[in-house]
Amino acid sequence: MIITLAEEVKESELSELLAILRATGWSGTPVKTKNCLCLVVSGNTDIDLFALKNLPGVKEIHNISEPYKLVSNSWGVSPTVIELGDGITVKKNGFSIIAGPCAIESEEQIESIISHMTSCGVGIIRAGAFKPRTSPYSFQGRGIKGLQMVYEKTRSANIKICSEVTGTSQIEQMYDYVDIFQVGTRNSQNFELLHSLGSVDKPVLLKRAMSGTIEELLQSAEYVFTSGNERLILCERGIRTFEKSYRNTLDLNAVPVLKEKSHLPVIVDPSHGVGVRRWIEPMALAAVMAGADGVMYEVTEKPDMALSDGQQTLDFEESKALVNKMRATYSLRKTFS
Amino acid sequence: MIITLAEEVKESELSELLAILRATGWSGTPVKTKNCLCLVVSGNTDIDLFALKNLPGVKEIHNISEPYKLVSNSWGVSPTVIELGDGITVKKNGFSIIAGPCAIESEEQIESIISHMTSCGVGIIRAGAFKPRTSPYSFQGRGIKGLQMVYEKTRSANIKICSEVTGTSQIEQMYDYVDIFQVGTRNSQNFELLHSLGSVDKPVLLKRAMSGTIEELLQSAEYVFTSGNERLILCERGIRTFEKSYRNTLDLNAVPVLKEKSHLPVIVDPSHGVGVRRWIEPMALAAVMAGADGVMYEVTEKPDMALSDGQQTLDFEESKALVNKMRATYSLRKTFS
Amino acid sequence: MIITLAEEVKESELSELLAILRATGWSGTPVKTKNCLCLVVSGNTDIDLFALKNLPGVKEIHNISEPYKLVSNSWGVSPTVIELGDGITVKKNGFSIIAGPCAIESEEQIESIISHMTSCGVGIIRAGAFKPRTSPYSFQGRGIKGLQMVYEKTRSANIKICSEVTGTSQIEQMYDYVDIFQVGTRNSQNFELLHSLGSVDKPVLLKRAMSGTIEELLQSAEYVFTSGNERLILCERGIRTFEKSYRNTLDLNAVPVLKEKSHLPVIVDPSHGVGVRRWIEPMALAAVMAGADGVMYEVTEKPDMALSDGQQTLDFEESKALVNKMRATYSLRKTFS
Amino acid sequence: MIITLAEEVKESELSELLAILRATGWSGTPVKTKNCLCLVVSGNTDIDLFALKNLPGVKEIHNISEPYKLVSNSWGVSPTVIELGDGITVKKNGFSIIAGPCAIESEEQIESIISHMTSCGVGIIRAGAFKPRTSPYSFQGRGIKGLQMVYEKTRSANIKICSEVTGTSQIEQMYDYVDIFQVGTRNSQNFELLHSLGSVDKPVLLKRAMSGTIEELLQSAEYVFTSGNERLILCERGIRTFEKSYRNTLDLNAVPVLKEKSHLPVIVDPSHGVGVRRWIEPMALAAVMAGADGVMYEVTEKPDMALSDGQQTLDFEESKALVNKMRATYSLRKTFS
Repeated sequence: MIITLAEEVKESELSELLAILRATGWSGTPVKTKNCLCLVVSGNTDIDLFALKNLPGVKEIHNISEPYKLVSNSWGVSPTVIELGDGITVKKNGFSIIAGPCAIESEEQIESIISHMTSCGVGIIRAGAFKPRTSPYSFQGRGIKGLQMVYEKTRSANIKICSEVTGTSQIEQMYDYVDIFQVGTRNSQNFELLHSLGSVDKPVLLKRAMSGTIEELLQSAEYVFTSGNERLILCERGIRTFEKSYRNTLDLNAVPVLKEKSHLPVIVDPSHGVGVRRWIEPMALAAVMAGADGVMYEVTEKPDMALSDGQQTLDFEESKALVNKMRATYSLRKTFS
Repeated sequence: MIITLAEEVKESELSELLAILRATGWSGTPVKTKNCLCLVVSGNTDIDLFALKNLPGVKEIHNISEPYKLVSNSWGVSPTVIELGDGITVKKNGFSIIAGPCAIESEEQIESIISHMTSCGVGIIRAGAFKPRTSPYSFQGRGIKGLQMVYEKTRSANIKICSEVTGTSQIEQMYDYVDIFQVGTRNSQNFELLHSLGSVDKPVLLKRAMSGTIEELLQSAEYVFTSGNERLILCERGIRTFEKSYRNTLDLNAVPVLKEKSHLPVIVDPSHGVGVRRWIEPMALAAVMAGADGVMYEVTEKPDMALSDGQQTLDFEESKALVNKMRATYSLRKTFS
Repeated sequence: MIITLAEEVKESELSELLAILRATGWSGTPVKTKNCLCLVVSGNTDIDLFALKNLPGVKEIHNISEPYKLVSNSWGVSPTVIELGDGITVKKNGFSIIAGPCAIESEEQIESIISHMTSCGVGIIRAGAFKPRTSPYSFQGRGIKGLQMVYEKTRSANIKICSEVTGTSQIEQMYDYVDIFQVGTRNSQNFELLHSLGSVDKPVLLKRAMSGTIEELLQSAEYVFTSGNERLILCERGIRTFEKSYRNTLDLNAVPVLKEKSHLPVIVDPSHGVGVRRWIEPMALAAVMAGADGVMYEVTEKPDMALSDGQQTLDFEESKALVNKMRATYSLRKTFS
Repeated sequence: MIITLAEEVKESELSELLAILRATGWSGTPVKTKNCLCLVVSGNTDIDLFALKNLPGVKEIHNISEPYKLVSNSWGVSPTVIELGDGITVKKNGFSIIAGPCAIESEEQIESIISHMTSCGVGIIRAGAFKPRTSPYSFQGRGIKGLQMVYEKTRSANIKICSEVTGTSQIEQMYDYVDIFQVGTRNSQNFELLHSLGSVDKPVLLKRAMSGTIEELLQSAEYVFTSGNERLILCERGIRTFEKSYRNTLDLNAVPVLKEKSHLPVIVDPSHGVGVRRWIEPMALAAVMAGADGVMYEVTEKPDMALSDGQQTLDFEESKALVNKMRATYSLRKTFS
């Protein structure tokens, strides 16, 4: 249940409202969103809250039975549009491309990728500085220095940066050098991190956990949103199943479902999703046709020499072809709706 | 390992060859395919069989390390084309549509569906006569009478029939009334049934088991093929995962993988795959873009009144729109290759 | 819903009852069980059937909301006891051991195993004659001749035979030579086979499908039961998960759940369940403690030389130790209840 | 590969050794363990490191092909024993019980539980102060105040505290009030948290991720160990599968496997594992028989009134019975080895 409050609501009216909710067995969390002040109400009682709709200060009451509320599509907010500056956006029902290396390695690597992206008109780079690695002995990334280097090189190219944050301690140092904070699959339910990102004024791209349900992903998004940051992007990146022919099982079913349930944009990462270079293209195109608002994939000049994820990284030629095909596919999709 | 034999191979040469294989720890199974006589060779030895290539009777030797052999793409056969008559085909790299009700219910139902299919130009009807139901108390289908009725009504409309066979005892009675025998997910490793269908001269559509791997599906196909029937269609129809927002998890990753590994056509069933009516269309379109050689879906005039699977069945309007969009998508895909 | 009928119920009373059910939107299937004649009633209506309890011919009405009915624990039948002759039983809350080779290979193999079983006091041999193999090129078993050989050798030793039936065509030829028909995991939802086994007067051991739910296993059992055979044994044998450290994931949770929900005995197969020889013992002992009514495992004199499943087969020394430990564990468990 | 160094190794010898490793394509991480200084060596080269064994400073070379090294059983360390003081230990091949409420709620609750634990002789309480909840609107725990309260009440009772840490920011404030830091399933691959706990001198109980593999759990443990904390306890708590009859699928197969592969103690949490109160006991007893070094379960005086997890929490009577049965089972198990 979400109660949106009148713009001119008085503090006394709000207190009164919260008291009434408590008295009837509900609890209300006030959240200030971009559009309004609202109360997220939850509880296990059967009392009909629509009776409250004539109380002073109440604007509208939205019944939302799902465990996620503010990210739900059920309370009349419009599709989320995230402006990154310079005309670059990620938005529901649009189509954005995020491309780049698994990990930042060297200046030469980044320069060649930026030049490739510019030639393709791709506006957002993915570039890992802090790599979450299953083994403590694997390459852990170039850290903040790597990120600063990418920052410098991208500014003149008007390319925005999406980079993974793997712990709360990195938020502050990364802040000046990223345009989107990425939360990886292993941290999808790291609530401390999600909560901290709620108070940051930069967008967050949130990946589904390895065996995270649709509901859990939306509730993780709710953590960030209710903590104050509503510029959120959801990302399907493959789930764990019994099948071992692919690295993960990219779950495109999640695309129409998430788009139906939430007002947030949904992007797809086929690189991690299927994990094998020659199957990235068909899965990326399928993602577009399933309704994805964007695709994020790994590209570098010489994938075979990458320090991580080379087996699922495209080279420039493959990347260019993919970009063109995705755009043609998105154009066709737009004619369908 | 597949050894293709010379057309004029003598029986003595074949015996000699088999003896040599046995002596070196291999076993060879002679299989007569459409194109040639060949030996499927398996075993756990390290001896290099390419030494055999100059023996009399041997034409070519193909090293196939996968556990499936004849259905593999590794021995130089061309993409499979299955002619159903009247110009209707299912073929690798083509695009076929199979539509119809979950179960045959009544003459009126079938007539309206045929008329709908004709108006859309869809040439193959799916229509269950024997329904494999988890509960013995659920509707089990109209049986052979229902199938005969569909047969009569489809002939003048030039529509081909694909219908599920749930046991060996049905093969003979169904034979005259089907154009494609469908093997359902629960029978995907019913080797008695697969073996029996190997000696039938009608095509077989083989669905992936609920938790069947890609390798297992191809080995099940191998059972039919090695028993003598090479007119096979593979079908992805959703796998079991932890996610409960959908009926099954349609696994489109299987499409590029199966197409790479096998010369058989691969179709997708989004109705069972995602199991929710309003998500069929995006998943069907995604399947086309992933490279599917066909889509099979459920349609009936009034889905809400269907005796089974109504929640995942399209009505005629939705079906018509889907057919048009799939064709446009396939046209775009063809420009990509 | 199960309606048990009075012993002296008249045919006219039964017809009347069925007519009333139909008129109120239910359907009733008459089933003759060992204890009584009953009607299995299913349907989607809200009408309260307890109103029927005073009708002539009705003895008791049991509300069973589960999709399985006759195998449910909710209608007051006593725990199932299956007598195999010579004092050998499989029964709920008892403890039976089934041991033997994966596949019948030779007379010497069988003789040594029988002698081992006799020395351990194990009364039921498992011995595969028809092997369901994923690949058509793998060893398919010795067939009926092998089974006949085992039959001859076991009779004087008073050992009962449990052997897998992989198709309806085998039932008749196997009938004289088995004491328990085993249905394997791949045929767990082969409804033609289950139905056929319903009319056989020998017990059936039914394995859970590779990704079969508890509900599906019980509904498969219901198929056999409602077809007339109530001497059923359920078997947990490992499910498919993402984990690849073991062959399957033996799911011992199924044991207390199945025992709560059904009156049928539940046994566990740790050999297929965990699939690695040195982990069979701890999982077998855990199964006993979880409440299993029996354990089925693979044993042979020289596991390393077995034609199939050697990696999960115990040798005689390990087997003897396991039998002793399982019995001690079962003794302790009995003191707990 | 682990190279253990001589006690009297000189810094110059160490530098020399690291230089040689680098020159041959390996990288070496020096780690000071309780027993010795060692180098954890990883890399992708084929050069045989055993050639190094005569170099000055080298004591022993252990070949460890697994991706985890220091937690592996392959380098000759003895089974881990973790002393908590007052004679309370968690150790490999021992049997420890950890019991208590899901969440700290009130003084009365904690007092009654302590009194119950004392009467049963259970020495470690589990008590959540910071609860990781899927929904931001669920009860989040009493926080540090709750933990301090538990601390005060347990000291006189000689009961040790195991409590979950959900973020790095809590480590310092919790430090004085816990005996074991618990890392929950959602943080099983939160490498920032694992790394931070590596520099703490209190034991860490590490739960398996919801779909974490055995290898991943051991690599997460490696993160803590290599960061300096070797007092680690592994915990199996149920994995995600397709089965929905239970909350999770408790995977007891993990017990013998983890015990074989690692020198760390392995405990089992059947409360979260199976998630249904009446199935906790059989699964706990099965865990003991599978070889678990301890069991952790939820207990409170009135489970039906608990603020979280009531459906899987035992009452005192059930708890007392379980403790007695687990001890009897462990006694029997000890006679087996």
